[in-house]
Amino acid sequence: MSTLDMIEAAAVRLNGHVRETSLLTSPFLDKLAGRRVLVKPECLQHTGSFKFRGAWSAISALDDADRQRGVIAYSSGNHAQGVAFAATQHGISSVIVMPSDAPQLKINNTRALGGEVVLYDRANESREEIGETLAAQRGLTLIRPYDEPQVIAGQGTTGLEIARQAADMGVDQADVLVCCGGGGLTSGIALALESHAPGLRARPCEPEGFDDVKRSLATGQIQNNNAAAGNICDAILTPQPGDITFPILRRLCGPGLSVTEDEAMRAMAQAFLRLKIVLEPGGAVSLASALFRRDEIEGDSVIVVASGGNADPEVFGKALEFLT
Amino acid sequence: MSTLDMIEAAAVRLNGHVRETSLLTSPFLDKLAGRRVLVKPECLQHTGSFKFRGAWSAISALDDADRQRGVIAYSSGNHAQGVAFAATQHGISSVIVMPSDAPQLKINNTRALGGEVVLYDRANESREEIGETLAAQRGLTLIRPYDEPQVIAGQGTTGLEIARQAADMGVDQADVLVCCGGGGLTSGIALALESHAPGLRARPCEPEGFDDVKRSLATGQIQNNNAAAGNICDAILTPQPGDITFPILRRLCGPGLSVTEDEAMRAMAQAFLRLKIVLEPGGAVSLASALFRRDEIEGDSVIVVASGGNADPEVFGKALEFLT
Repeated sequence: MSTLDMIEAAAVRLNGHVRETSLLTSPFLDKLAGRRVLVKPECLQHTGSFKFRGAWSAISALDDADRQRGVIAYSSGNHAQGVAFAATQHGISSVIVMPSDAPQLKINNTRALGGEVVLYDRANESREEIGETLAAQRGLTLIRPYDEPQVIAGQGTTGLEIARQAADMGVDQADVLVCCGGGGLTSGIALALESHAPGLRARPCEPEGFDDVKRSLATGQIQNNNAAAGNICDAILTPQPGDITFPILRRLCGPGLSVTEDEAMRAMAQAFLRLKIVLEPGGAVSLASALFRRDEIEGDSVIVVASGGNADPEVFGKALEFLT
Repeated sequence: MSTLDMIEAAAVRLNGHVRETSLLTSPFLDKLAGRRVLVKPECLQHTGSFKFRGAWSAISALDDADRQRGVIAYSSGNHAQGVAFAATQHGISSVIVMPSDAPQLKINNTRALGGEVVLYDRANESREEIGETLAAQRGLTLIRPYDEPQVIAGQGTTGLEIARQAADMGVDQADVLVCCGGGGLTSGIALALESHAPGLRARPCEPEGFDDVKRSLATGQIQNNNAAAGNICDAILTPQPGDITFPILRRLCGPGLSVTEDEAMRAMAQAFLRLKIVLEPGGAVSLASALFRRDEIEGDSVIVVASGGNADPEVFGKALEFLT
């Protein structure tokens, strides 16, 4: 079980290795959202997303002998880059199991960050089997993307920073909108806020049609998405909330929010125009919720965790068309 | 004359009002540049550029009676937005004199930030005459964009932050590349570094064909540009270095650097891809110099001041095409 103690211990291990991102503001966004908007730009984190926090936390928590044997992760996205770079920074090896049809840029980036990429055929091979075989052969430790206490603890350091930074800006009552896939970031933040800023309430944000967490919270039971893919917010498409994350989300979070693909793209355009940051669609659903779900949000201020910026240039170009 | 004392006093006045921007890094940029690259993202500053620092410094340095009468500036760009917003935050009025053919978005932004926009006909009217008449009628104080000691002092606070942040990262010898128009930012940073980080050396970066500062430094005398416009780096096109800034630049800076428009655009694309920040062409010439003028730079590390991010969406879209 992840606890506040684990998050605070992770913060000590992360100190000096993870970037503390500042809360950004813009009077233009305040006007659009109808309230003060404070944006936590985790796109500026190492490797372009919050995933580096969880990866660093998990790797740094291993005992020396396990760590030296290396780590393994299944991911074609932000978790892959976070694990690869955190491993390289620790001076250890990482194996990243990716589908052979993953975009070449993501494969190249993961390799350039020091990851050993092992490709598998999505149609005919099981990544779990490949991963388990490699892990057993080499004694690698699997770093799960969200349903892993030390990963949740690392993501939770985002919440410790929010609590402190929001207090410095005079905000002690607000919804905290978090882009949510499996719920690692949202649950970590919710745990941190519970003790450090009890007036701040985490709320998961998802793409419409992939709102498994929102529906799970509404029904009190884990719900699945109908489809596994087919939305531009690829970074946060997961089949269902995690077994470890869901009880935390259920106990601590406010209702979920969901936005359309167009709304996510419009939020990317506003982040470009008003904050000068690059968001990917899945990292912008929180800002989109702040801008386009005003009536579902409470309070004079809202905090937005903009979780990642690894946007494809073509997709980003399309988002900019909303400005013209 | 601007001095270190003025910069340190400005830092006290700016504290809590100006964003302290962190130094960003990427292993990918290090590889491209052939050395460690530390980027100071002033695009994340309020109003999207460092100009807010100088504006805040100048307005906060006025005596109360003068300040209450309001301020005036001539600018269609970043200085306009910086002055308008700093004035609004001080609860005073600002008049911004802009050419009637300025882009509508810039006029709208300046108004939305609280500026009273006065348009003039570039062909038939003199902005100085209009400004002087208004200033005399209303008792407004003119805030010059760079040749003004308190503006230089405000921009110099960027240098104080660089000195402290670079030391924290173990960098005490490096070239500091600064996007340079009239030289307010470059001279302010150079003054701050002289005392606080004597191993760091400011170097102005400009677009080719508009390298008045580079040529002025090379010849020891103020040189003009042949043209007043006609380059995508519009934010830093000035006819010549300032009378106040040039002696500072001459005494403290290393040789100037200049880059092509395409190189500025390529640097914007890399900042998008690797740092997740938005730069405008004039704010990217420093990064372009780090990436494409490796042989003209000394040391194992280089510090890059990315001075602004108010990029036109169409221009930004063109920059992204360099990635495909």
